[in-house]
Amino acid sequence: MAFTLHPKLADGGHPLARFAGCHLLLKDNALFPWLILVPETEVEDLDELTPERYAEVCQAIRRVSTFVREQFPLEKLNVACIGNVVRQMHIHVVGRSPGDPAWPGTVWAYEGKEAYPIEKIAALQAAAATFEW
Amino acid sequence: MAFTLHPKLADGGHPLARFAGCHLLLKDNALFPWLILVPETEVEDLDELTPERYAEVCQAIRRVSTFVREQFPLEKLNVACIGNVVRQMHIHVVGRSPGDPAWPGTVWAYEGKEAYPIEKIAALQAAAATFEW
Repeated sequence: MAFTLHPKLADGGHPLARFAGCHLLLKDNALFPWLILVPETEVEDLDELTPERYAEVCQAIRRVSTFVREQFPLEKLNVACIGNVVRQMHIHVVGRSPGDPAWPGTVWAYEGKEAYPIEKIAALQAAAATFEW
Repeated sequence: MAFTLHPKLADGGHPLARFAGCHLLLKDNALFPWLILVPETEVEDLDELTPERYAEVCQAIRRVSTFVREQFPLEKLNVACIGNVVRQMHIHVVGRSPGDPAWPGTVWAYEGKEAYPIEKIAALQAAAATFEW
């Protein structure tokens, strides 16, 4: 069966890459360097993946972390698989800095949002196109 | 140099296990099945670990997830490495259910707390002592 991104994930993000059986999205919130990795799977929690797939997704998270670190200034990297609302498995990789509006709280408890300028989205998509995933 | 648990982690949790170069703590909040895995490392973010250590910590997270699932009823398993306040690397593994007081929000945005009865702590420590980490 073809995999379909949950509409809330698809609508709230810009596609950056597809690798390791995962879709990588840039969350459309310029307040934080916030990427979302969506593995193609029907299970909801990381530990429900097979051991091989789990290891593959963990490596994918590591690559996304490297990409975020290369593309944005940041002091801390938050990684989380939560999904209590949107149940399709997705992993947040979020660069954090003492100057960001939610610091030191989590981004999930923060309501603020700012759309990216189209040039910034295009620049990140271009960087993602040449990144070694 | 000997590794020392951050006092906020040590004071807020009960030791459950030590394996794979990590300390496993039961967070002293009976409102949620909430375990905290603290890898012995000086770096703060997961992607700063060497590839080998990263893979080892990911496998440790998987074992903790299995333990939480065996010991508590839950509907979702939240896994997160945040650490914006307590900078010593620690990974939250939290069982979530639609009936819990923070649902569907995250536990990090929830202020409520309830200490565990001593018998429950002892039972979890006994279960951890025989679990195959």
